[in-house]
Amino acid sequence: MSITSHLSRTLTAKEIFDLVHQDLHRVEEEFRLESVASEEAVTRIAGHLQKSGGKRMRPTLVLLTSKLFAGRDPATSVQLAAVVELIHTATLIHDDVIDEAETRRGDSSTNAIWGNQTAVLAGDWLYMQAFQIALRLRDFHLLDLLISLTQRMVEGELLQARLIGRMVQREEYLELVDRKTASLFSACARLGAIAGNATEEEENRLGHFAWNLGMAFQLIDDVLDFTATEDVLGKPVGSDLREGKITLPLLVAMEQASPTERADVDKVLADRNYSAVPFKRILEIIEAHGGISYARKTAETYTGEANLLIGQFPDSPAQRALQSIPDFIVQRDF
Amino acid sequence: MSITSHLSRTLTAKEIFDLVHQDLHRVEEEFRLESVASEEAVTRIAGHLQKSGGKRMRPTLVLLTSKLFAGRDPATSVQLAAVVELIHTATLIHDDVIDEAETRRGDSSTNAIWGNQTAVLAGDWLYMQAFQIALRLRDFHLLDLLISLTQRMVEGELLQARLIGRMVQREEYLELVDRKTASLFSACARLGAIAGNATEEEENRLGHFAWNLGMAFQLIDDVLDFTATEDVLGKPVGSDLREGKITLPLLVAMEQASPTERADVDKVLADRNYSAVPFKRILEIIEAHGGISYARKTAETYTGEANLLIGQFPDSPAQRALQSIPDFIVQRDF
Repeated sequence: MSITSHLSRTLTAKEIFDLVHQDLHRVEEEFRLESVASEEAVTRIAGHLQKSGGKRMRPTLVLLTSKLFAGRDPATSVQLAAVVELIHTATLIHDDVIDEAETRRGDSSTNAIWGNQTAVLAGDWLYMQAFQIALRLRDFHLLDLLISLTQRMVEGELLQARLIGRMVQREEYLELVDRKTASLFSACARLGAIAGNATEEEENRLGHFAWNLGMAFQLIDDVLDFTATEDVLGKPVGSDLREGKITLPLLVAMEQASPTERADVDKVLADRNYSAVPFKRILEIIEAHGGISYARKTAETYTGEANLLIGQFPDSPAQRALQSIPDFIVQRDF
Repeated sequence: MSITSHLSRTLTAKEIFDLVHQDLHRVEEEFRLESVASEEAVTRIAGHLQKSGGKRMRPTLVLLTSKLFAGRDPATSVQLAAVVELIHTATLIHDDVIDEAETRRGDSSTNAIWGNQTAVLAGDWLYMQAFQIALRLRDFHLLDLLISLTQRMVEGELLQARLIGRMVQREEYLELVDRKTASLFSACARLGAIAGNATEEEENRLGHFAWNLGMAFQLIDDVLDFTATEDVLGKPVGSDLREGKITLPLLVAMEQASPTERADVDKVLADRNYSAVPFKRILEIIEAHGGISYARKTAETYTGEANLLIGQFPDSPAQRALQSIPDFIVQRDF
């Protein structure tokens, strides 16, 4: 589906923001209240990550999808958006321990400030808190969704840990994107459907919509790691490869690379830095084989599918907002 | 309550074992089946910890308490015992990451073999798997119990991380024992009550019984860290102090210690080894102020309370087995 075919129905970023910004404030407040722990370190860590922000893609998705339905309970949608942020935050904290990351979103990482010990436990605590909130809603289907999701994301992290530092297959890469990003996006939309008292069929359709959105989102993230600037990323360009993570643009290029090109990539992968082979050379190799444009096209396939699925919902401000998100994802440069 | 007053009703360890050993086999099998993950590392880690054993105190408690009730569902009690072992195993794995432990039960620790990364994630995965199994039983009360328990144990670990390397107050020590050990014991007995279709009052009473048992169990564990042999412990004696953990025998001695004695303990606490001040000297200081016997007496207060509570249940083989456990805990030397 081309951009123009639904142009008349898309919203600007400002219009989307206006639709959810009051609810997003409530989500922030809920997150803040629910991350107060008997041990102050947890509260401080949660506050640190809340302050450093992020794009609030996930709670926005919960809120917008819930607004598609007349049977929506606004309080539940805010609670579930906070639950998603708690789970996402816990995952980020454990990720940073695992990656031995020094920074996160341009700020010091949790483990860098509080140490691995406290970071592991704060992550555990936030997972449990997310489940506590969800439990209060007394909905088994919701709990099935959240616990399966969390386990699936953990499996994604384990897969990533196993694949790190070596060339990966397309299937492995796509499975990783599914488990690490798309499954969380999908769960967000399903939570919105649950808060909206949607039918099972509507929930499934929204889940698939957001899954496609998540796949596209991560693919573009992986492209931007090569093409954006350090300023915009909040971290150095080429970080993925430096951390031993092979993503689609490079993976595609490697399928057609010459032995010399392959050796250069292997060198960076082995060194985990760009001292011997500069980043510029890697980018040239990727561009020579169309890796960036291939990854962008693949992302557009996913957003096309997402557009088709969301187009099946009746017109409304929330529907138009959701219809607009796929293009924002593909066109974003941050 | 003295040991003799209920002597006629106590069972030998062999008799207790005979009551549960078939079910314990089923628990082992359930644990093995339920720890098969899409990522093989998790399966191997769970298998490693299952093989290295432990005393199976916790599943035994679930099984025996469930047997107090005529309305018992045997399959549920086995499942819940496996859930407890999964949660306990996840906690041990994260503990070892946090303590940077090299060994566990005389064998290499998970993090020493698989690294911190995989250990953190394997722990996360096992927590989620425990909740998945519990979710299948479609019982909100059960889920409340398990998720609160897990969060409470995590808070205990956070408290311990904060207290490490410094002298603690009695209240802090007891809170730590509550959160780290007694609350899990309490939950085990409550799970048995749930599997037994017990009344709320019966569940509460069993919870208090096992909470007291857990307090005594940990106090004796802390005593044995000073008085047992390396062979029996599967780790060097005096490990707690070497890791910066002050337990009741030493804490009590410090309340009456001379400045020289205090300085010697502080030295070990600062050095985290017994090079300057030998372990023998620390043991002398504790004995000089009756720290060991005080801790043992405190443990006996808890087992006395446990005996009173379990004595209120009608006589049966399971009741007699549970009646016998407090004395085993106090008298054990391993």
